[in-house]
Amino acid sequence: MQAAVPATAHQPCLDELKDLLGERLSTSTGVRDHHSKDESWHIPHRPDAVAFPESTEEVSEIVKICAKHRTPIVAYGTGTSLEGAVIPEHGGVVIDLVNLDQVLRVNPEDLDVTVQARVTRKQLNDHIRDQGLFFPIDPGADASLGGMAATRASGTNAVRYGTMRENVLALTVVLADGRIIRTSRRARKSAAGYDLTRLFVGSEGTLGIITEVTLRLYGIPEAMAAAVCSFDTLEGAIDTVIQTIQLGIPVARIELLDDVQMDAVNRFSKLDYPVRNTLFLEFHGTGDGVKEQAELVQSIAGENSGGEFRWATKPEERTQLWTARHDVTYANKALRPGCEIWATDVCVPISRLAECILETKKDLAESFLMAPLVGHVGDGNFHLGFLIDREDPKEIAEAERLNERLVMRALAMDGTCTGEHGIGLGKMKFLTAEHGEAVSVMREIKKALDPLGIMNPGKIFTL
Amino acid sequence: MQAAVPATAHQPCLDELKDLLGERLSTSTGVRDHHSKDESWHIPHRPDAVAFPESTEEVSEIVKICAKHRTPIVAYGTGTSLEGAVIPEHGGVVIDLVNLDQVLRVNPEDLDVTVQARVTRKQLNDHIRDQGLFFPIDPGADASLGGMAATRASGTNAVRYGTMRENVLALTVVLADGRIIRTSRRARKSAAGYDLTRLFVGSEGTLGIITEVTLRLYGIPEAMAAAVCSFDTLEGAIDTVIQTIQLGIPVARIELLDDVQMDAVNRFSKLDYPVRNTLFLEFHGTGDGVKEQAELVQSIAGENSGGEFRWATKPEERTQLWTARHDVTYANKALRPGCEIWATDVCVPISRLAECILETKKDLAESFLMAPLVGHVGDGNFHLGFLIDREDPKEIAEAERLNERLVMRALAMDGTCTGEHGIGLGKMKFLTAEHGEAVSVMREIKKALDPLGIMNPGKIFTL
Repeated sequence: MQAAVPATAHQPCLDELKDLLGERLSTSTGVRDHHSKDESWHIPHRPDAVAFPESTEEVSEIVKICAKHRTPIVAYGTGTSLEGAVIPEHGGVVIDLVNLDQVLRVNPEDLDVTVQARVTRKQLNDHIRDQGLFFPIDPGADASLGGMAATRASGTNAVRYGTMRENVLALTVVLADGRIIRTSRRARKSAAGYDLTRLFVGSEGTLGIITEVTLRLYGIPEAMAAAVCSFDTLEGAIDTVIQTIQLGIPVARIELLDDVQMDAVNRFSKLDYPVRNTLFLEFHGTGDGVKEQAELVQSIAGENSGGEFRWATKPEERTQLWTARHDVTYANKALRPGCEIWATDVCVPISRLAECILETKKDLAESFLMAPLVGHVGDGNFHLGFLIDREDPKEIAEAERLNERLVMRALAMDGTCTGEHGIGLGKMKFLTAEHGEAVSVMREIKKALDPLGIMNPGKIFTL
Repeated sequence: MQAAVPATAHQPCLDELKDLLGERLSTSTGVRDHHSKDESWHIPHRPDAVAFPESTEEVSEIVKICAKHRTPIVAYGTGTSLEGAVIPEHGGVVIDLVNLDQVLRVNPEDLDVTVQARVTRKQLNDHIRDQGLFFPIDPGADASLGGMAATRASGTNAVRYGTMRENVLALTVVLADGRIIRTSRRARKSAAGYDLTRLFVGSEGTLGIITEVTLRLYGIPEAMAAAVCSFDTLEGAIDTVIQTIQLGIPVARIELLDDVQMDAVNRFSKLDYPVRNTLFLEFHGTGDGVKEQAELVQSIAGENSGGEFRWATKPEERTQLWTARHDVTYANKALRPGCEIWATDVCVPISRLAECILETKKDLAESFLMAPLVGHVGDGNFHLGFLIDREDPKEIAEAERLNERLVMRALAMDGTCTGEHGIGLGKMKFLTAEHGEAVSVMREIKKALDPLGIMNPGKIFTL
């Protein structure tokens, strides 16, 4: 049953939206609750209403109405962000793109595809697998490709295939005044004007709403093999990663899970890996190429206290392994029922990775909070997942303290406060520490493209 | 001997600059002439003066003075642009960065380097070769890395290593009001705010002046082999490229030169290749990997009317081959002494490449103008080099007509008017045809970051 429409300053806006969308504008408490949160620890906040458009043009109409009434707008994909990016802090209208779920055009001969924004990464891969193609970017969640573009997502394959930054060819975007633009064409490269594609990738809905995404695809490699390797020491595992990257070995995936994380993974995914500091690896190439890469990395691991590789070559074994990896957030939540996950996300130059991780583990050993460590270490990116009770100010304060130490450590190493989760709500206070005066340029761009400040207000920076 | 200072509306600005720079501000005719042109057919235009700063801070001081007087500013590297990007159409001050020529910091363990903007690609490679490293992006000219970033340059290695878009990690930029920003840190990936790095890459000096560039580096591959292969038909050569790319074979370079271009190359570089449609190829990897790739491509070529590969494996043979390729602009000029080169630059999705090239060759066969064809065909990018007398309106008109047909053909194929040369002066009229409403967003960004319109005015678009 639909609850009564609440009294809101945005009522005239909602009335107009109702005329446009009918039943596809919801003000029910359940729907608003569902759109009040993401997968992070950040405090939920309900929007005034949720709109369910069915096309780019309809998104444009909604934005025009909101702009007229200066009503805040938040675009919503799968709600799997980890920094509060989709939480409508200032109320207003959430635009849920759930109906924009079509794969529009696969071009196998050009290795590209155009999808609507709410197609998820798994849905896309299911769609193209029979054509021998795959899309590599894989945040843990089965996120929407529009949301992944908006947050500049990456994942386990980024070390080989890059992030959304490298793999988005073009976007369709609805701007803050309802104009619809296409940022680029399908050519693999272009020097024609400003790189609007890259400007909107990572803009977290603050400059416009992404409704279509054109992506690079890759042929499924002739051979793929995944392996798990345990190490006597954390240093040994990290040094294996560093040496592998420095030698230019084109590993497809090289992921670190510390012993705490391995324990969580075993429990949640019913696996029996040794509870030790571990690398999950994957190699892509020709049969010979994969063998060659694997032998090289195995010999590096052997010199760094690593054990034998435990192989997963059959598709179902590989899937099991990487599903377990992708589910770490859920595995971590299961360690402490009812807890929230506060995921850190620093990324540092690879030469500083061991130092950064080891100092961080020392901090952690001295804290009462528990946090498994997992990371896309080939990129210099790793996460702690603090298991917190967000009602407990002491726990929040401690997570804040540890996170701040970690971010400042990463910045001092010429790293970033967020490798892939975005600024959202959680990293705003670090943006100036990271970018200095450059933040003023970001603000000027924001003001130029969203002069009313209605696009996902209160995210990335305050104006 | 320094000529008398000319009368100019910018005299008060020049006086202030003179106080700042002394002899490092030149108003001599010779120096102004040198900075009036690039390597294109575009009509030269003298600046009022040329400044030679010695640091980022001094660039900032110059910009502040110019901003105060609303004097146009054009940044100048090696003057090797091919679309008039550095021609000071509106007069004002050219800032020649020739003194910003230092490699600031090589981080071999992180595979990155920070250079001042006027370090050239060859200078960088000479500097890092002993450390087993190289930087792959290679426009024909020995361009400055700042200029290459500003025009989003690419070259023969882009098919494997990407363009400046993928290989710039961070920039130091002097903004239109003299503020100095650093766009990013050295981490391999980041989701921290708007991607200012990519915004300035390709902005052609219209948003700010790039004074330092942090670049990705690569380990010199264990094995490298280059080969030349002639084809019975142009279609055969193009189909070889298309099939190679579609199979995902990681060729490092795959360049097409038509028979006209091969003749020019032979003459200029004193070589004896068959005067036929030809591919220049290069393979990078382990010894086995290179062998495997080469065999695959050789078999594809064999099925597409290609002859035997003629190998260049010794470093000096490889250098000779690629120097000949890089010198095509000079080789083309030598075909018709005194001529200028009008280089086209479309880039299309690879599936449309054969059609695009063959229709273009048909146009060319029916024209009185001569133009060798050369291209980074693995990216879908190719160039015609019209040999024109720019004093002859008939030749200009014909080059314009053919270029327009070519650009419209590429746009109809979802391609771009410029794969790597930039918009500059020459492609401005196609920007809206390519990007539509998105151009208005570019204009809004330009106005926000350069409200006085002093940064390289009259390039990319008029305001």
